[in-house]
Amino acid sequence: MEFNIKSYLASKRELIDRKLDALLKYSPKSITPLEESIRYSALSGGKRLRPILTIASNEAFGGKEELALPIACAIEMIHAYSLIHDDLPCMDDDSLRRGVPTTHNVYGEAVAVLAGDALLTDAFNVVVREGLSSGLRPKVLTDIIGDISLAAGSKGMIKGQSIDLALEGIKNVSVEQVEKMHSLKTGTMIEIAVTTGAKIGGANEKQIKKLSTYAKSLGLAFQIVDDVLDIEGGKSIGKEVGADARNKKTTYPELVGLKKSKLKARALTKKALKALKDFDDRATPLREIAFYLVDRKF
Amino acid sequence: MEFNIKSYLASKRELIDRKLDALLKYSPKSITPLEESIRYSALSGGKRLRPILTIASNEAFGGKEELALPIACAIEMIHAYSLIHDDLPCMDDDSLRRGVPTTHNVYGEAVAVLAGDALLTDAFNVVVREGLSSGLRPKVLTDIIGDISLAAGSKGMIKGQSIDLALEGIKNVSVEQVEKMHSLKTGTMIEIAVTTGAKIGGANEKQIKKLSTYAKSLGLAFQIVDDVLDIEGGKSIGKEVGADARNKKTTYPELVGLKKSKLKARALTKKALKALKDFDDRATPLREIAFYLVDRKF
Repeated sequence: MEFNIKSYLASKRELIDRKLDALLKYSPKSITPLEESIRYSALSGGKRLRPILTIASNEAFGGKEELALPIACAIEMIHAYSLIHDDLPCMDDDSLRRGVPTTHNVYGEAVAVLAGDALLTDAFNVVVREGLSSGLRPKVLTDIIGDISLAAGSKGMIKGQSIDLALEGIKNVSVEQVEKMHSLKTGTMIEIAVTTGAKIGGANEKQIKKLSTYAKSLGLAFQIVDDVLDIEGGKSIGKEVGADARNKKTTYPELVGLKKSKLKARALTKKALKALKDFDDRATPLREIAFYLVDRKF
Repeated sequence: MEFNIKSYLASKRELIDRKLDALLKYSPKSITPLEESIRYSALSGGKRLRPILTIASNEAFGGKEELALPIACAIEMIHAYSLIHDDLPCMDDDSLRRGVPTTHNVYGEAVAVLAGDALLTDAFNVVVREGLSSGLRPKVLTDIIGDISLAAGSKGMIKGQSIDLALEGIKNVSVEQVEKMHSLKTGTMIEIAVTTGAKIGGANEKQIKKLSTYAKSLGLAFQIVDDVLDIEGGKSIGKEVGADARNKKTTYPELVGLKKSKLKARALTKKALKALKDFDDRATPLREIAFYLVDRKF
């Protein structure tokens, strides 16, 4: 049977959306603006790349999907929080996200800040509560929480966002600076999405190392393609086209040109695939995701 | 030997400050504004009530202080994050905190949002990393992380802050509404500070329940005294006197008067102490803290 990446992604996305919806359930009769804004931010579409990677990576080791799913959703909740805060007027001041108005535009700044705080905090609750009830060992969970909090914290994603802000409007930003920023801002969480799935699936240290290489290459390729699409517009990117230029952000394509950027993205994809060469057929989704991301038009 | 609450508090505060300083160490040569703002927010004084309660509660069961200290500091990091975000222009828009300019006034709004995010995220990393290395069992740590994330999340502290914002400027707020807001906004984290210490110290479920009662009463008493001090000014409250009135917040003393508020605070302290009646001498610090808080002038 041939593997169809599009239907794989669609089915996992549906699975994740359903679980997220259940995790973020509030009493419909007495739902508050804060709770509404949490649901709005986390359930308004999105590619679900990170949680799909967690599930696919767990699958590569024959892990049970029901063990990976809630942790995958927690990682997506952290992603959703980071988008809310990145979009705030004091940050990137974006008005559209995933094709709809940003959270602060709908619910106001105060609620948006709190919605982000809540998604971040509740994500750790989901890891513990759902992790324990689905049968993951506390030792595995503390390991995962250590990884996620390190990747999302002051030495990871948040550091990346602060570098992104610091580089804004600066001339002569180097390729190395942009790459470092991306690797911290988006790379660390993509990496942890992959390695977390592998840990749930029972991967050994050597395998996890290879998956880190896969994820790092994939993460940067993904970001470069994103920047290319921000310029070319693509079919529907879901945010304002040209937003990076408006925010005076130095992007990869701006530094090396569109053509070279695309070549770089392909080279990175190759590197990602090479890291998986010793993995068996169960890693097919991980491989196909890498191909798909670099060829996407969205 | 007589117990001296002032020297007890001072010595624990010093212990906590030293540990926090070590936990938030960054390379001095290359420290970034984000890192500076994290240190500024977490190390600029403060009563350290929550972490002291964690330590005192652990002590009540003969627990080792070095096991409770890092977790206590993580709880204080979460408190520090909540203060940064509460002070933001889109929230309470406060210019002073603990007697010094608020984080966003010194580092700007974007960095302040990120500093809060970082302290919250890194707090979970501290619990896992320091918890495991000091010898706490993963089972205890997942239990603690579940408690802390529930208390700090969308059903606890953040819900309290959102109610606080929603009540702003509204007439005819009831005593019940103000109490509910306080119990969520400050009560849950004070409760968890106490019960976490007890869990580290090996308390049983019945004892933890009693400590919850102690902490709930203490937390509300503490808040009422805070509101009284906001009106009376006291010696040095460290924030702008009358800030609550300026923000159009309905406070306890406003609803029932200063005198009744003080009586209520005393009644709550009594209730807190009663919950500890079966505890031995090792709970002396917990008892003395309750007395002290209601009599304080700061």
